[in-house]
Amino acid sequence: MNVLLVHAHPEPRSFTAALRDQAVETLQAQGHQVQVSDLYAMDWNPVASADDFSARENPEYLVYALEQRLGVKSQTLAADIQQELDKLLWADLLILNFPIYWFSAPAMLKGWIDRVLVSGICYGGKRFYDQGGLRGKKALVSVTLGGREHMFGEGAIHGPLEDMLRPILRGTLAYVGLDVLPPFVAWHVPYISAEARQEFLASYQQRLENLGQDQPIEFPRLSQFDDGLYPLAQNTR
Amino acid sequence: MNVLLVHAHPEPRSFTAALRDQAVETLQAQGHQVQVSDLYAMDWNPVASADDFSARENPEYLVYALEQRLGVKSQTLAADIQQELDKLLWADLLILNFPIYWFSAPAMLKGWIDRVLVSGICYGGKRFYDQGGLRGKKALVSVTLGGREHMFGEGAIHGPLEDMLRPILRGTLAYVGLDVLPPFVAWHVPYISAEARQEFLASYQQRLENLGQDQPIEFPRLSQFDDGLYPLAQNTR
Repeated sequence: MNVLLVHAHPEPRSFTAALRDQAVETLQAQGHQVQVSDLYAMDWNPVASADDFSARENPEYLVYALEQRLGVKSQTLAADIQQELDKLLWADLLILNFPIYWFSAPAMLKGWIDRVLVSGICYGGKRFYDQGGLRGKKALVSVTLGGREHMFGEGAIHGPLEDMLRPILRGTLAYVGLDVLPPFVAWHVPYISAEARQEFLASYQQRLENLGQDQPIEFPRLSQFDDGLYPLAQNTR
Repeated sequence: MNVLLVHAHPEPRSFTAALRDQAVETLQAQGHQVQVSDLYAMDWNPVASADDFSARENPEYLVYALEQRLGVKSQTLAADIQQELDKLLWADLLILNFPIYWFSAPAMLKGWIDRVLVSGICYGGKRFYDQGGLRGKKALVSVTLGGREHMFGEGAIHGPLEDMLRPILRGTLAYVGLDVLPPFVAWHVPYISAEARQEFLASYQQRLENLGQDQPIEFPRLSQFDDGLYPLAQNTR
């Protein structure tokens, strides 16, 4: 497999970075090719703007997704976007590796999503969810957070973590057609012992060595909806 | 009321900007004080990093939230963060005004959340949800998106929009103690007529003129959980 790991953490020696290194080591040991986009180290620009396009469909008025489509066709996307897009298209597996900030991705990583998942390639028209432009590839989210495990789940104070991660898991990764594997989560990281961290790393290694057995999360399929994207009646499915 | 409107859109003449202007005009006409943080116009830096602290609790290893707490106490937060924080503390109502990118906020706005909602003031320890540091203030999210209204809701292809916005509505705004009003949503914006846009503006104006009647969305209260944040049994509530 070709693997693209996108990593975003402001501390180079963070435990999130240890998860990144564990993934690289484990996946390479299994014979996979791995590329890492370390967004802080790259000084990645997370801001979607008119500067992302060297030619414009409409120079007077920016509709970002429309300009992405032209940029793809005419190969006039900004160089930093095109490089990440090339890595993404090369990859069979995308790993997003980050600390949970406000129950979602740090702005640095959100800006990778905003700029790299371009309309016209990753999605467009009726190409989304199971018909998305990146179908056939897989995605894994690996996250660290401060909260304890019992604060998440049905009836817990924050509800299920998967519900908080919905815009990423469903609204982004599944939307562009990726098979989204259940997230890997390291809980309570700033407060735990070195031994507990080692246990998370060992557990992540084992998870990565057996990724082939993971079942993707279920999401809507376009065949469940009509041409106007209204739900088909249950009895006609 | 004092109102802080945080706006993030890469096109200065966007319909999202028209919503911003409508809000300013309507609220001022009602006698409210309004400040606008136009993040693209300000060239806001959305990247949380070590540069955000001129003094460090631990110069060797960055734990962002811990450094925020010191920065608050010793007034060593970066000037751009402190300015936004001062506006936030001045405000009785926070409006986040943005186009939906990937079912969430553009990185530009996410980076305002990451950097400005500092630990030690906005939350910390057991001060979150109804005990959050910003309790007593209100929040309103006003968004534009490309999708049609029937694509959202129970059974719809994307599910309820409120579920997609959960990390913002619950995980961010309610987490810091704000009373979160139901979002204002302008659907299908890139594809609709000028008249349809005017209708959204009129409807937004009416909504803003009657904000006092809006009931906040219900979220967990800390009194429903024990000291370890485990849920109390239903019959002991």
